Amino acid sequence: MPVYADPAGGVAIRAESLTTWTTVLVERLGTPADIAADVAVVLVASDRRGIASHGTARLARYAALIEQGTMDPRARPEQLRARPAIALFDANNGWGHHASRVAVDAAIAGARSAGSFTAVVRNSNHYGIAGWYALRAADAGLIGISLTNTSPLVAPTRALDPILGTNPIAVAAPAGQYDHFCLDMATSTIPRGRIEVAARRGEELQPSWAIDHEGHPAITPDEAFAGALLPLGGCEETGGYKGYGLTLLVDILTGVLGGSTPGPLIAPLFSPRHGSSDLGQAFIVIDPDAIDEPGAFGKRMEHEIELLVAARTAPNAPGRVLIPGEPESEAERRSEARGVILDREHLEGLAALAERYGVPLPEATPLER
Amino acid sequence: MPVYADPAGGVAIRAESLTTWTTVLVERLGTPADIAADVAVVLVASDRRGIASHGTARLARYAALIEQGTMDPRARPEQLRARPAIALFDANNGWGHHASRVAVDAAIAGARSAGSFTAVVRNSNHYGIAGWYALRAADAGLIGISLTNTSPLVAPTRALDPILGTNPIAVAAPAGQYDHFCLDMATSTIPRGRIEVAARRGEELQPSWAIDHEGHPAITPDEAFAGALLPLGGCEETGGYKGYGLTLLVDILTGVLGGSTPGPLIAPLFSPRHGSSDLGQAFIVIDPDAIDEPGAFGKRMEHEIELLVAARTAPNAPGRVLIPGEPESEAERRSEARGVILDREHLEGLAALAERYGVPLPEATPLER
Repeated sequence: MPVYADPAGGVAIRAESLTTWTTVLVERLGTPADIAADVAVVLVASDRRGIASHGTARLARYAALIEQGTMDPRARPEQLRARPAIALFDANNGWGHHASRVAVDAAIAGARSAGSFTAVVRNSNHYGIAGWYALRAADAGLIGISLTNTSPLVAPTRALDPILGTNPIAVAAPAGQYDHFCLDMATSTIPRGRIEVAARRGEELQPSWAIDHEGHPAITPDEAFAGALLPLGGCEETGGYKGYGLTLLVDILTGVLGGSTPGPLIAPLFSPRHGSSDLGQAFIVIDPDAIDEPGAFGKRMEHEIELLVAARTAPNAPGRVLIPGEPESEAERRSEARGVILDREHLEGLAALAERYGVPLPEATPLER
Repeated sequence: MPVYADPAGGVAIRAESLTTWTTVLVERLGTPADIAADVAVVLVASDRRGIASHGTARLARYAALIEQGTMDPRARPEQLRARPAIALFDANNGWGHHASRVAVDAAIAGARSAGSFTAVVRNSNHYGIAGWYALRAADAGLIGISLTNTSPLVAPTRALDPILGTNPIAVAAPAGQYDHFCLDMATSTIPRGRIEVAARRGEELQPSWAIDHEGHPAITPDEAFAGALLPLGGCEETGGYKGYGLTLLVDILTGVLGGSTPGPLIAPLFSPRHGSSDLGQAFIVIDPDAIDEPGAFGKRMEHEIELLVAARTAPNAPGRVLIPGEPESEAERRSEARGVILDREHLEGLAALAERYGVPLPEATPLER
């Protein structure tokens, strides 16, 4: 559970201002206003939760996909088939954030009516942080599961090449006075961005992180870039086949279930020349109140959390036991008070977009060091 | 993905004979015939699939729970609440295998009708291998998810003591000519039984397996027995917080959702003096045909599997990429041909039960060495 330090040369921008700016910028890319608003909310939520890799820092990559005609900013999702507790949507190669917001809202409404609901999206694009959609269900008092397949970066156990994505699993549940539980994890041991951080810092890698081009544990970032990420657990001997199973499971419940491109054939990340992403997403929403008194589940979640945070800790532990989602909620509270924190590279990327599309960036405050 | 060698001094028993014997023995414990039949099928399925730890080897532990009045062999599950896509069952402290078979069958029927369905079981007992219930859905052409919480053995990230179970996740899906995909994994790096194997073999442990009583990586089996298992991923630095998140997730979707005892308060494994187990189980079943032409999902699963098994392998890999469930299916085929393989300790345990309850063991053939 990473905790994020202020970056050198960073700035703070108020979340509301960044959201408004992002909305206008996404509109300039040819996106209808309501779709742009969804995209902006999801991207800035990532920045607010301290997950800088999946937020507005990706705007330039999305813009490139649109400019080269790889993704259609005007596309609206359509519901292809539906039954009382399942629906399939075609995102029509539009913004993944919008199609998935529509799909999870359908799953929330469906779960309220039927008790649980599964919504699957095909022909989609990257949808930002998986946790946002799970939290949307939790904020509505429901349990939300959010899954997406992604471009290949991970080598299945025994394989040499990256042929599956970091396919995240996010699950959120309401937790009474503790707000929520929110697990949001890639099914690889680490994200690719962690290798980039190690490269900047001159660090050696842990053996469970990645393999080199010959399948041996990658020691240096360059070896990892030439090889593949490992699934959660690392190599076969340390349980990596379980992480591989989870990675494949996500591909099955998203791309295979919805009829999108199978994981091993998905184009590289943000690579316009390879054609559309055709990603799959899936949302499973469960209404705990459908089988209990209203609020009873939240009370039990409070009890569960109290038992965990009161647990005796190991002497070398840096603090008490954390509940999944706590560091991100803490980052969100800090963003509320101080604004969203952007590092210099991120800020420069947004400034270039502001210039290119004629949408002036909102006021940014340099961070005190 | 472990592959199992024949044990020294082992025997083979025909699966049908072992199932019949187990049924009669479970009946002698006071179990109605139809419930006993469910228990026997699930236990012998574990033996047939090469997962000896969760099959008939546990019969003596179940018998002890019943003899001491901790578990009620006569109890029948009752459906407490239901909506079109969710149901809650109370197992009434009866056999977990039967209550869960009833619940997953309700989920299968519900998914066929509504497209997806969630069934939750409270006040239950150990239900054997999680995968059996997922496979029951896959054999019916549906995607099945099977979850249970279990007695504490795992230390959450940063915690010193085992306060969560090895809480397995099992997911199975039909796969056309390849039969099925079946991921069935504890959310700890290894099961406790793997430490016992290391003790018998005099092996040192991997650092991601367990901690000692001071929270340091356990080197010897004795250190691990005095400490706790680690969640998948190992310690915090190698991604163990993700495994902890999965372990907790299973507890939330089973015990917390259904209103059973929260994970940290569950009694030790098979410990009659601590009172009933009050475990929770959950089943989520999805009908792929509800959003596509019949059989289309299975065809796509075939394609996915073909891409994976054809993947280029690392030079040091012991073979091609495996699909989760393959080793267990292979064990099942071997059991079909040769009978179920029991090691000497397992056989002696069954012989003692045969003697105690007056149910003669079926013919057993010594293994050729």
